[in-house]
Amino acid sequence: MENRFIYLDNAATTKPCKEAVSAFLKAAETFGNPSSLYRLGIDAEKLINAAGNVITSKLGVERRSVYFTSGGTESNNTAIFGAAHGHRKLGNRVITSRIEHPSVLESFKQLEKDGFDVKYVCAGEDGIIDIDELNGYLTEDTTLVSIMHVNNETGAVQPVDRLKALMSKKSPKALLHCDCVQSFGKLPVEPKKWGADMISISAHKIHGFKGTGALYIREGANIKPLLYGGEQQREFRPGTENVGGIAAFGAAAGAYRYNDEEMRGFRSRLAERLAEKADIVINGSAEHNSGSVMNISFPGIKAEILLHALEAKGIYVSTGSACSSHDPSPSHVLSAMGKTKREIEGAIRLSFSGPLDPEDEEYAVSTIASEAAKIRKYM
Amino acid sequence: MENRFIYLDNAATTKPCKEAVSAFLKAAETFGNPSSLYRLGIDAEKLINAAGNVITSKLGVERRSVYFTSGGTESNNTAIFGAAHGHRKLGNRVITSRIEHPSVLESFKQLEKDGFDVKYVCAGEDGIIDIDELNGYLTEDTTLVSIMHVNNETGAVQPVDRLKALMSKKSPKALLHCDCVQSFGKLPVEPKKWGADMISISAHKIHGFKGTGALYIREGANIKPLLYGGEQQREFRPGTENVGGIAAFGAAAGAYRYNDEEMRGFRSRLAERLAEKADIVINGSAEHNSGSVMNISFPGIKAEILLHALEAKGIYVSTGSACSSHDPSPSHVLSAMGKTKREIEGAIRLSFSGPLDPEDEEYAVSTIASEAAKIRKYM
Repeated sequence: MENRFIYLDNAATTKPCKEAVSAFLKAAETFGNPSSLYRLGIDAEKLINAAGNVITSKLGVERRSVYFTSGGTESNNTAIFGAAHGHRKLGNRVITSRIEHPSVLESFKQLEKDGFDVKYVCAGEDGIIDIDELNGYLTEDTTLVSIMHVNNETGAVQPVDRLKALMSKKSPKALLHCDCVQSFGKLPVEPKKWGADMISISAHKIHGFKGTGALYIREGANIKPLLYGGEQQREFRPGTENVGGIAAFGAAAGAYRYNDEEMRGFRSRLAERLAEKADIVINGSAEHNSGSVMNISFPGIKAEILLHALEAKGIYVSTGSACSSHDPSPSHVLSAMGKTKREIEGAIRLSFSGPLDPEDEEYAVSTIASEAAKIRKYM
Repeated sequence: MENRFIYLDNAATTKPCKEAVSAFLKAAETFGNPSSLYRLGIDAEKLINAAGNVITSKLGVERRSVYFTSGGTESNNTAIFGAAHGHRKLGNRVITSRIEHPSVLESFKQLEKDGFDVKYVCAGEDGIIDIDELNGYLTEDTTLVSIMHVNNETGAVQPVDRLKALMSKKSPKALLHCDCVQSFGKLPVEPKKWGADMISISAHKIHGFKGTGALYIREGANIKPLLYGGEQQREFRPGTENVGGIAAFGAAAGAYRYNDEEMRGFRSRLAERLAEKADIVINGSAEHNSGSVMNISFPGIKAEILLHALEAKGIYVSTGSACSSHDPSPSHVLSAMGKTKREIEGAIRLSFSGPLDPEDEEYAVSTIASEAAKIRKYM
């Protein structure tokens, strides 16, 4: 039993797929600098453009509007600082939510220090931002609204498709940025339909490699670059491109198969079966949730103890976000949703890239329930 | 003959070594998020730390003082903006040279726009910065001096070891940053001996992968981060680490063997043999040059034509820096050295990671000379 490997932490990172590995190895052979003028450089540049075409066709946008970055954090930072500083003359108000990823929240905290007027929208118990509160914050001088698509801790799907209509009325100059790191490849990410001006995505959440992400910027949007240097990526994002990581991102995005309807069914079934066997609270609402993340509180249990007990049984889960796993302070997302201290301390996250096979599902349900019961006995 | 592959553009990028490839593949198996609390995450974190230990032992610095980045451009931007903005209250003057890499120069141009008082030091015909001019710019309110170690276009070795003594006298608050992207692994890079506060290095110049670099920051130096987000890398450089790229950087740095004395001999011999057969000017002084780069002018010849003629013969060279190869304006480095327009237009760069075997050397010398002669005939 201990040799099982049931990886339920796909929101933290995923296993690179074989297509990503072979694209990376091909790029290692085509090792020229993509800026070089000879064939070996041009061939490397072609690998970048082929990957770019896969990504942009998934997003339904032009190749020119996507820039490769070192990951979701750089994409989010570039979008937020670039829009806020690029539009500072147009206004000083910027808006985000209390349930964003740290790379968004910390960027906004920095904007506060730089004198911006930052508003943070709350979320309800269902994990969804309060759209009326957001609407109340929109002003003529608002230049940026940054709201994530799928929350990384709960899987709650935010109403990103409804924001631009509100913004157009009250804040016509404001840009909309959506952190789609957890949704790209899983749910439709449709910047044009949403009217989003910027979209952040990341490779290693869909079986590509860590160290590569991308940022969509609507053509014509005036975003200040974060990095300065050579002429790569239309001088907006200089630096020799991570050709291998980019090629692998394209390969992973092309190969990835995920069915949200199937996954929502899987998630519901898992939730029901766990609720039958254990005293749990599912955080967020099933109705507005991605099938890829399930946040469960075991009130009265310390989540980290359960995490390690499950690890010993070959099941890998997390306590909230990996990006703040060493931070002892309680989850800012569950806090913003009004969860109790006991619920927050006992919360684990299961996250999926596909359904488990029936035997693993059975094992996961019974092991999670039995380990939780064991721990409860000793507390 | 056309099946030859003589790659003389190692300053642009290098072929990943087998040690880097296998370290990367191992990291792809150890795919956990290095911030995760379970074994698979901790093992990924160990790969990062092992690579960090290789890098820091080469630099002779503490593990805590090195941060992994997405490459030389990010390292340089972080150092320059981080020091200038982090010390803005202490002074407004910042100094660099006219022969820096675009990722340094463009960052300083941005600082100029932000109101900093930027001084650019010239270089002599030998490609070495004018240290007296630099000394003249040092003031009480100078907060940053950024000078590269080995120039990427000429290989000229700058007197980075002599700067801190001057700075200590006249600009005690100033930090010293050195872009060592072209020297790391080749020449001793010794931040402690030099008194350098920040050092930028990159993996793909020493047979690691594109997309990974590092920045040394002396402990206690007050550098403002460029990116905000999770708790990775002591919260100074957040974002899920590029574990594969970092592990490969460590493996490449550990495996790299380069002998500068041997390479200086090789470079001199190549220069002599070419001078016997062709009308050339070697740009820079042999005395103060790394053995890894040779910049040669063929006055009266358009360098790009020679580049493509050599490519057809299996020899890969560049016209100056790859990072500005699509830029039609003349080399800023050769311009700063006072080279004539004809010399600049006819300049190619050969760059080496090791000596050529005698047969390839013979072929390279005779082919470069004969192709240059052919082109000259038609111009």
